[in-house]
Amino acid sequence: MLQPTKTLTVQRWRDGTVEPSSQDVLIEEVPVALEFNGITYATMLVTPADLDDFARGFALTEGIVGKAQEIYGIEVEPTPDGIVLHMDIASARAHALKARKRSMAGRTGCGLCGVESLDQVLRPVYPIVEPGVISPAAVLEAHRQMTARQPMFQATGASHVAALATLDGSLIAVREDVGRHNALDKLIGATAGVNQRAMVMVSSRASFEMVQKTLAAGHVALAAVSAPTAMATRLAQQHNLVLMGFVRDDGLAVYAGAVHVE
Amino acid sequence: MLQPTKTLTVQRWRDGTVEPSSQDVLIEEVPVALEFNGITYATMLVTPADLDDFARGFALTEGIVGKAQEIYGIEVEPTPDGIVLHMDIASARAHALKARKRSMAGRTGCGLCGVESLDQVLRPVYPIVEPGVISPAAVLEAHRQMTARQPMFQATGASHVAALATLDGSLIAVREDVGRHNALDKLIGATAGVNQRAMVMVSSRASFEMVQKTLAAGHVALAAVSAPTAMATRLAQQHNLVLMGFVRDDGLAVYAGAVHVE
Repeated sequence: MLQPTKTLTVQRWRDGTVEPSSQDVLIEEVPVALEFNGITYATMLVTPADLDDFARGFALTEGIVGKAQEIYGIEVEPTPDGIVLHMDIASARAHALKARKRSMAGRTGCGLCGVESLDQVLRPVYPIVEPGVISPAAVLEAHRQMTARQPMFQATGASHVAALATLDGSLIAVREDVGRHNALDKLIGATAGVNQRAMVMVSSRASFEMVQKTLAAGHVALAAVSAPTAMATRLAQQHNLVLMGFVRDDGLAVYAGAVHVE
Repeated sequence: MLQPTKTLTVQRWRDGTVEPSSQDVLIEEVPVALEFNGITYATMLVTPADLDDFARGFALTEGIVGKAQEIYGIEVEPTPDGIVLHMDIASARAHALKARKRSMAGRTGCGLCGVESLDQVLRPVYPIVEPGVISPAAVLEAHRQMTARQPMFQATGASHVAALATLDGSLIAVREDVGRHNALDKLIGATAGVNQRAMVMVSSRASFEMVQKTLAAGHVALAAVSAPTAMATRLAQQHNLVLMGFVRDDGLAVYAGAVHVE
């Protein structure tokens, strides 16, 4: 089984001179195929760690299952070409997936998951009924905690991190991956049983798909270390999600919803 | 037609106080469907600028056409749900695409373009026959020029940039997008007619797919501002691509191939 990081020898060049060869730790990515009751659904590049969380989170945020209880089992199978994640899901959900496949004219080879045409991009997600009241101080505390808990990033400088925190800023879980969507899916898979209002924090930008996944998981806020996109902001505003960007040690910007300052 | 950026009012919170509302410029993303001779292939989120370059580059780097001359026309059609890029390609290529679609058991919903199973991930790309000799000073010069030519990033802080440069560090072209794969596809589409040995530079990480696209376009080096992945490094080594990471004002690291210091 591949490890999530790999040490290589590199040659560094600085200020006009070649430094002696040195060791560098690189993040790994591996092709991962997702199969639901034997139906191949997607193949993507994922950092080989927390793959069961990834499988569970992907199934939830892409709407393949409606709740984690509809997943009966996850099997991780290493092969010479990559990893197959076999998932055993409720038969009604597998039938729906098969029907969706039969109705397709052809393949949507990449981009948005399971999207055949433009009118399917805005996959229905429910608006938040009771919007969260977010305290900036709590967001900054969660950010401080998240920054201290990203071992892959510390080793490689090349992974994304996603964290779930309570509304008073206590970290519930953290997950990392080479891809920002994967990190969020791993986090959502790892915290599927969490039964309280919570906020998601990501080390990346907040794009449309990150907002969609946060809404699918039922969380009330998304805080991004980098910028949101305009489309992500519209989706958040329409669904009562508190959307924050540029979270730093000493501040943040609010793009949708409101934060509460004591 | 949507603009590539959008100005919004945001609320900033800093050091415990709410600042007066201010304006912020956000990067836009819009659903874009790619159609080849009427066959829908993929739907993805793209920043609405240089869409004809994007269509051309995507067709080339995903191997839908073998050369730009097999693309006879590109039409950009705005719709209420997004943008459709209609491409008119050589009929032999369209037949191959149709045959590939017929042979599929089902959809690969997302992740790797056109990849149905794990053994198809390593799409064949040709190794570079005559590896490039890269001077670090030229890479730093190209980086300096690229950094000065990224208006979307300067406005939004949220876009990726990709540049093509000659081996002595002169910039040939620059393209930006909210997505790093899209920025590279736009660049490759914009420079399909360039007939000299050149290097690609990206503001992002160098993942497996970025190396694959660079090889598909026939360029001899890829320099990334951030880190490469381990899988990207293996692919570059196997195909004689010079792969550099952590390109800064004063240095860089070499992960595959060799650089030449005078």
